[in-house]
Amino acid sequence: MGAKDLLKLLLLSSGFVGLAAAADSPIPVNFGVIAFPGFEALDIFGPLDALNLLAYKYPMNLSIIAATMDPVGTTPRINPKNSNFSEFIVPTHTFENAPPLDFLLVPGGPGTRATNLNSTIDFVRDTYPSLQYFMTVCTGAGIAARAGVLDGKNATTNKRAFKETSAWGPKTNWITHARWVVDGNIWTTSGVSAGTDGLFGFMSQIYGEDVALNTANGMEYVRWTNASYDPFADLYDL
Amino acid sequence: MGAKDLLKLLLLSSGFVGLAAAADSPIPVNFGVIAFPGFEALDIFGPLDALNLLAYKYPMNLSIIAATMDPVGTTPRINPKNSNFSEFIVPTHTFENAPPLDFLLVPGGPGTRATNLNSTIDFVRDTYPSLQYFMTVCTGAGIAARAGVLDGKNATTNKRAFKETSAWGPKTNWITHARWVVDGNIWTTSGVSAGTDGLFGFMSQIYGEDVALNTANGMEYVRWTNASYDPFADLYDL
Repeated sequence: MGAKDLLKLLLLSSGFVGLAAAADSPIPVNFGVIAFPGFEALDIFGPLDALNLLAYKYPMNLSIIAATMDPVGTTPRINPKNSNFSEFIVPTHTFENAPPLDFLLVPGGPGTRATNLNSTIDFVRDTYPSLQYFMTVCTGAGIAARAGVLDGKNATTNKRAFKETSAWGPKTNWITHARWVVDGNIWTTSGVSAGTDGLFGFMSQIYGEDVALNTANGMEYVRWTNASYDPFADLYDL
Repeated sequence: MGAKDLLKLLLLSSGFVGLAAAADSPIPVNFGVIAFPGFEALDIFGPLDALNLLAYKYPMNLSIIAATMDPVGTTPRINPKNSNFSEFIVPTHTFENAPPLDFLLVPGGPGTRATNLNSTIDFVRDTYPSLQYFMTVCTGAGIAARAGVLDGKNATTNKRAFKETSAWGPKTNWITHARWVVDGNIWTTSGVSAGTDGLFGFMSQIYGEDVALNTANGMEYVRWTNASYDPFADLYDL
């Protein structure tokens, strides 16, 4: 068997561990994603691209939840080159009228350093107890930490912003070397693109490795399947 | 030197080839992305996340261009599980009032199979001659092919939808085994997540490898740097 065939076998194979795990975990139906000004685009749309495809296979609803119904932009807080370069997404609900959720994702991005995140933090604090699953991407862990959700939990976050973000959670056991960390029903991922790998880790555990693999293949995405492998922790001297 | 140190060196190193190339290529200022109903989220937001970060370093403008100013959704054309699961982005311009562009990106997605894409195809045909750079992601190559832009060119597209998409371009030399293909000022990438790697290939060539590497590190993204390596072509028997 040549290297090509081996790789093909790997891409086609499905793991029995994932299939076994899938049988024991509730399947979420109602998904929510929080959007705030200065969110990081890929933090939301990496995981959502995978979930968009999953919604062909499972009945799923998505709510995009923000402080108001105004479109929410990736607009950065600093703009040293006077660029006009951002994208706006449309909320479906506000923090006041969001429906009951099974799964909530909190992205990171420059907006997590803003000072006006109280309503976002309050929503996370109030919503977490009724969730099946909770996920943060990148510095979104800083919002969860300020909501108290990560108290006493293992968690990770963006590696370049690790020290600033982890300071928001003095009662959290922050893991430096991790692409993502699972503690109970809380999934925290490292920076930006790590959210996609964490989401696939979640998909593999809850829906089965075959579903995760098929979805990733449809996205032509080679997943990072080892949650503990993290060269960026070394790169940023953690 | 251990494996960790070697990887760190690799993540920190900058390539001289990229730096040399950057000096010879015009730096684009005005970027455009086309949005149509049923676009694939990651086709747009993978490349845009990288460009959002680049806009901290270079003066850049982004136009999101659609048939109308109504928000444009990822809503799929088939919905076997009656899911309510899509995201809407806000256009900044229509095909009628789009500003002059230096760089245009056309995403793929289920919407590229729609029958009402004439205004999109016309816009690509009319705009291409004045561009510095043109990029397609995934089945977006099918739109470019129908616009005649890929006639006589080397190009690639989504591997699972390769046969249907390449049929739109009978005068194109379709490359099966490629993460992305460059022909003149035309960059075509393979499916979905390949757009991010193609964008980084573009960034490396135009802005220099150091810029691409630093941006990818900020996204904690391990790039696929070999444009010709493509296990998905084998997976889908191409």
